[in-house]
Amino acid sequence: MQQAVESPRQELFRRLNMAPGGVGVLLEMRRRLLRGLAEHPHWTSIETDLAHLFRSWFNRGFLVLQRIDWRTSALVLEKLIQYEAVHEIQGWHDLRRRLQADRRCYAFFHPTLPDEPVIFIEVALTRGMSAKVQPLLALDSPVVDPASADCAIFYSITNPQEGLRGISFGNLLIKQVAEDLGREFPRVKTFATLSPIPGFRKWLAGGTGLREGDPRHAELAALLAKLDVQDWFKDKARAAEILKQLGRLCAYYLLYAKQDDEPLDAVARFHLGNGARLERLNWLGDTSATGMRRSAGLMVNYLYRLDDLEHNHEAYAREHRIIASRRFGVLARDSLLTRGGAPRRTVTA
Amino acid sequence: MQQAVESPRQELFRRLNMAPGGVGVLLEMRRRLLRGLAEHPHWTSIETDLAHLFRSWFNRGFLVLQRIDWRTSALVLEKLIQYEAVHEIQGWHDLRRRLQADRRCYAFFHPTLPDEPVIFIEVALTRGMSAKVQPLLALDSPVVDPASADCAIFYSITNPQEGLRGISFGNLLIKQVAEDLGREFPRVKTFATLSPIPGFRKWLAGGTGLREGDPRHAELAALLAKLDVQDWFKDKARAAEILKQLGRLCAYYLLYAKQDDEPLDAVARFHLGNGARLERLNWLGDTSATGMRRSAGLMVNYLYRLDDLEHNHEAYAREHRIIASRRFGVLARDSLLTRGGAPRRTVTA
Amino acid sequence: MQQAVESPRQELFRRLNMAPGGVGVLLEMRRRLLRGLAEHPHWTSIETDLAHLFRSWFNRGFLVLQRIDWRTSALVLEKLIQYEAVHEIQGWHDLRRRLQADRRCYAFFHPTLPDEPVIFIEVALTRGMSAKVQPLLALDSPVVDPASADCAIFYSITNPQEGLRGISFGNLLIKQVAEDLGREFPRVKTFATLSPIPGFRKWLAGGTGLREGDPRHAELAALLAKLDVQDWFKDKARAAEILKQLGRLCAYYLLYAKQDDEPLDAVARFHLGNGARLERLNWLGDTSATGMRRSAGLMVNYLYRLDDLEHNHEAYAREHRIIASRRFGVLARDSLLTRGGAPRRTVTA
Amino acid sequence: MQQAVESPRQELFRRLNMAPGGVGVLLEMRRRLLRGLAEHPHWTSIETDLAHLFRSWFNRGFLVLQRIDWRTSALVLEKLIQYEAVHEIQGWHDLRRRLQADRRCYAFFHPTLPDEPVIFIEVALTRGMSAKVQPLLALDSPVVDPASADCAIFYSITNPQEGLRGISFGNLLIKQVAEDLGREFPRVKTFATLSPIPGFRKWLAGGTGLREGDPRHAELAALLAKLDVQDWFKDKARAAEILKQLGRLCAYYLLYAKQDDEPLDAVARFHLGNGARLERLNWLGDTSATGMRRSAGLMVNYLYRLDDLEHNHEAYAREHRIIASRRFGVLARDSLLTRGGAPRRTVTA
Ligand SMILES: [Mg+2]
Ligand SMILES: [Mg+2]
Repeated sequence: MQQAVESPRQELFRRLNMAPGGVGVLLEMRRRLLRGLAEHPHWTSIETDLAHLFRSWFNRGFLVLQRIDWRTSALVLEKLIQYEAVHEIQGWHDLRRRLQADRRCYAFFHPTLPDEPVIFIEVALTRGMSAKVQPLLALDSPVVDPASADCAIFYSITNPQEGLRGISFGNLLIKQVAEDLGREFPRVKTFATLSPIPGFRKWLAGGTGLREGDPRHAELAALLAKLDVQDWFKDKARAAEILKQLGRLCAYYLLYAKQDDEPLDAVARFHLGNGARLERLNWLGDTSATGMRRSAGLMVNYLYRLDDLEHNHEAYAREHRIIASRRFGVLARDSLLTRGGAPRRTVTA
Repeated sequence: MQQAVESPRQELFRRLNMAPGGVGVLLEMRRRLLRGLAEHPHWTSIETDLAHLFRSWFNRGFLVLQRIDWRTSALVLEKLIQYEAVHEIQGWHDLRRRLQADRRCYAFFHPTLPDEPVIFIEVALTRGMSAKVQPLLALDSPVVDPASADCAIFYSITNPQEGLRGISFGNLLIKQVAEDLGREFPRVKTFATLSPIPGFRKWLAGGTGLREGDPRHAELAALLAKLDVQDWFKDKARAAEILKQLGRLCAYYLLYAKQDDEPLDAVARFHLGNGARLERLNWLGDTSATGMRRSAGLMVNYLYRLDDLEHNHEAYAREHRIIASRRFGVLARDSLLTRGGAPRRTVTA
Repeated sequence: MQQAVESPRQELFRRLNMAPGGVGVLLEMRRRLLRGLAEHPHWTSIETDLAHLFRSWFNRGFLVLQRIDWRTSALVLEKLIQYEAVHEIQGWHDLRRRLQADRRCYAFFHPTLPDEPVIFIEVALTRGMSAKVQPLLALDSPVVDPASADCAIFYSITNPQEGLRGISFGNLLIKQVAEDLGREFPRVKTFATLSPIPGFRKWLAGGTGLREGDPRHAELAALLAKLDVQDWFKDKARAAEILKQLGRLCAYYLLYAKQDDEPLDAVARFHLGNGARLERLNWLGDTSATGMRRSAGLMVNYLYRLDDLEHNHEAYAREHRIIASRRFGVLARDSLLTRGGAPRRTVTA
Repeated sequence: MQQAVESPRQELFRRLNMAPGGVGVLLEMRRRLLRGLAEHPHWTSIETDLAHLFRSWFNRGFLVLQRIDWRTSALVLEKLIQYEAVHEIQGWHDLRRRLQADRRCYAFFHPTLPDEPVIFIEVALTRGMSAKVQPLLALDSPVVDPASADCAIFYSITNPQEGLRGISFGNLLIKQVAEDLGREFPRVKTFATLSPIPGFRKWLAGGTGLREGDPRHAELAALLAKLDVQDWFKDKARAAEILKQLGRLCAYYLLYAKQDDEPLDAVARFHLGNGARLERLNWLGDTSATGMRRSAGLMVNYLYRLDDLEHNHEAYAREHRIIASRRFGVLARDSLLTRGGAPRRTVTA
């Protein structure tokens, strides 16, 4: 009878998996299905069956956390170089800097894919919570004595397997890595990300809902025009006012811009869903071309307080409450969008 | 939408599995459910969901074949002693004999249960196909030079995990073990089991369908009475006739006694389903108390010809065809049950 | 030129070692040489060359400390059963008790002999410093919660390789084991042995130097006669006086009986040379046949205070000073041998 | 007594080795001693004692052969890039080419130095015996299907540890690698090096012993002058005569130029001492700057016939016989140096 309710396709997938390398073949199959879904909507049910299977196979109980360092095989390290999506790795020298004494890299592996990280995370051990990512990425940045660090900054999290899209393990990875680091460096008390706000500028340009005619619409248009000036931020005097306005709008974006009930920003959704809190907004945190284009140079620290994660996660899951430091509410209230009444439904803590 | 079709119970099980040791807990849960099903029929759907999950998790692609020998950890070896179901292991000395140069032991392990064999198989390297199991089990049996062996006899296959009942991997294990042995010992050409016929005597006593009044009923009753005599087989003169009759009836049992369309005998079902063939019937192959009580001392060799497995398996799966050596048909035709017309639907090859 | 000063025999030994298993062959060679030296005194130089080589090869820098537990391979565990010299292991059940939660076993291995412990040590985690060994060895002794232990008792140290006689690594093993245990169990503050005094009774019978005619000679003879009575110690009333006398004599033996400048007792020589101190004498600490025959039932705790080891070792190595608790001096002073003036050259601390 | 003959310095070294990383410290110590010997001749005895110790510690029986490939840790791979002395590795891309399907790399490791190769060897699987090294080293050289290869060419052997100078393990490495390759690729029948002749041009310029006035002296001087012309070999017409002359002289050099009784050329000494035979001389085998400067572009294949190694090695060790293909003798006889009588004492086979 069980057989009866079992999809024959799932049975087929399970048989495919018996061959050596079967999991890899199936991951590749789903990757292609996902890419082709728009054109081939009838592929959906196959893709769904694979997702169902992967949710079962890539259950956290089967994943193994491994530290990645200079002792790791070149085969795996090469994949990090290839896969790193957040802050591109510029070859072996760059990678090496990211694996030195004041850095850590961890990955989850599945037993059947020993050379393929399922997710990986890069960490910098720092004194104080980092506000800017360029110094962390600089090849010639001085190596901090890790024993003197009080912060662990998660500056890059990558899900390299397209075939696993929608199957989440980030939360667990961060928790486990934080625990591991806490044991190795008892003086490290702050675990936080340094994260992009990838949807901010796109939203600013088209998602605020301001109508033409509204004076705020013109004000925003003027701001956007200034952002289009090449290297606008290098003229410190002129940049100051822009940055002030941007900060307020970004706080508003992170607290109130929604997709259904959840934050519009994908990175915010991920970390807030994990139980982290919006801790600090950093002007000119990422001045790379990508950072300016997507996040207008802003970065945010999401704070992972291990003791609060469960509670925050529950509040988010049930009521979509966003836990944020008081400063975010203050900034958002001063943004040009809030003139005429503060928005609701955010929580400062 | 995928979420919608997913049973919330499966989601719960997957969450349980995230904790360390989670798989073990779930296996234990299903073990208890199975034991209690008769009394608590409403547990069926929970048990079915677990079976569904296990069929996914214990997919062959995730199992790792390992050789078990004297270098294996005591923790695992102790479990072999504890679990061996077919021919009980009498402590460490017995185990040691079963791991000497002319023996092999293999097990499948799941990556999350590194100390728990999911299935294991014991093999003897022999000259000629073994007909009797007691010499194989004797603690003081001489150790054969494995280089001189031409046969690999699978004399015990154990599924120790009650929680995995109904989830089959035996077929794959035997195939892989045979391939492994073939590489190590190119002179070994015959791969066969030495198996009990556990349902034979029970069927003889109550399953033949003969009615009182039928003269064959009286004849069978007389035979059964002789079997009840303690150590009947030790008087060779008197045993000869009994053995001849038993052999014929046992061949009949293996070829024609059915449960639905499949063989009534569970061991026959397993090996024939794997694509093995009924090769040879052995009188007094197992004269232990258990062997006499269940199989009337008879044992059978199922032959695993690697090249034929797939084809045989297909014939069995589609048409329930039993592949057997010619001798079985001859014996069955001479049994007291077949007087008056041979039964149909078996194939000799 | 270096070649010139190199013994050709050493060159030969080094060549022998190139073959697989070469080290094992050379160890066996020295074992046989040592056994035959008395009969073949001209073998000495060969044996000396091998010892020279082994001192080089078995340098502490090449030895690897490994914990032995129930996960260890049966091959190694079987050797422990076979080799244990101090308190014989009665098969697998006995071994298993010695590897439970309140016990630890460690061994040094050489990289070329992965299955052959070069030295191993057995430890019991206890509350309070053990005075008697039989409760530690009892198969049915209750398993103590190791988290509640405050003592680690080294109750057996075995050098199983006869071929390595005279090449010492015990000191290092105990230090490293104590450090390892200290990390795992921070509440364990006392590291001590529970050791036999193997030369005591032999010395008592023939080594005291008392001459016939001396009244103390008669007194000692009377004591020895009482020790020959089967189970003398079971009659508590009569035993009390014997034990008092024995304790005093044993303290005297440990402090003053010498071989050249070092203690006559081999076990004392070993632990005092390591920098341990004579801590406590235990009446009826080992009532086994061997314990009674060699040590008259007495056992001693040598205390390993990690901070003092270096200093004590230096004092011992330079001045042959024995570090002992005050009680030893008091006991020795009251022994029948010291009537008429205390001996010199011991230090209490 | 053994203690008495033992140098106290050796005892000291052994104690140094007990600390973690001790072997590395001692290797570094000898490296510095060797570098300073010329200035500090009294360091010789210390250096000799260390060499004695290393000859004992780095005995072949303790070394472990490991394959190096893209699964090897970056830590070790980086050392290959750093250490490769024969044909410099130009970073990670170059290394990767050297580790692809038609290449193999092997190293010996010592158990106490798991990240430090003691010697390593690079192999190319080829069709036919390679005559030129540049095609092997080209980053864009096509990857040969290794299953189609019939030759294994050892094109680089590096002893990276200066501290182990004079302690030889090359012979064993090549033999073991050849055996390993032979098992993996049964079609590979030829094992040969492609080696420089590093002392050739220096000898040509100053070691032939020709006196001024001898007409051959002028002839040689004219040849040397031609070699000084930049890229002389690119003008094929003019190069032909030069190459012919060089080939004859090089054959003469390899067969007859001696240092005491052994070949003057260090690489020849190494391979002939291993039992290899001089197989083939290759014009313009290495046209790199180094190759031209040291070997006048010539390379030689030393052939390792596993069955002959022992015998050849014996002939070399006892009688300094050089085993060479007939062609070498013919070439040498035609060289300008041999006009007026052939030299003796070489053997062609
Ligand atoms: Mg790292
Ligand atoms: Mg075995």
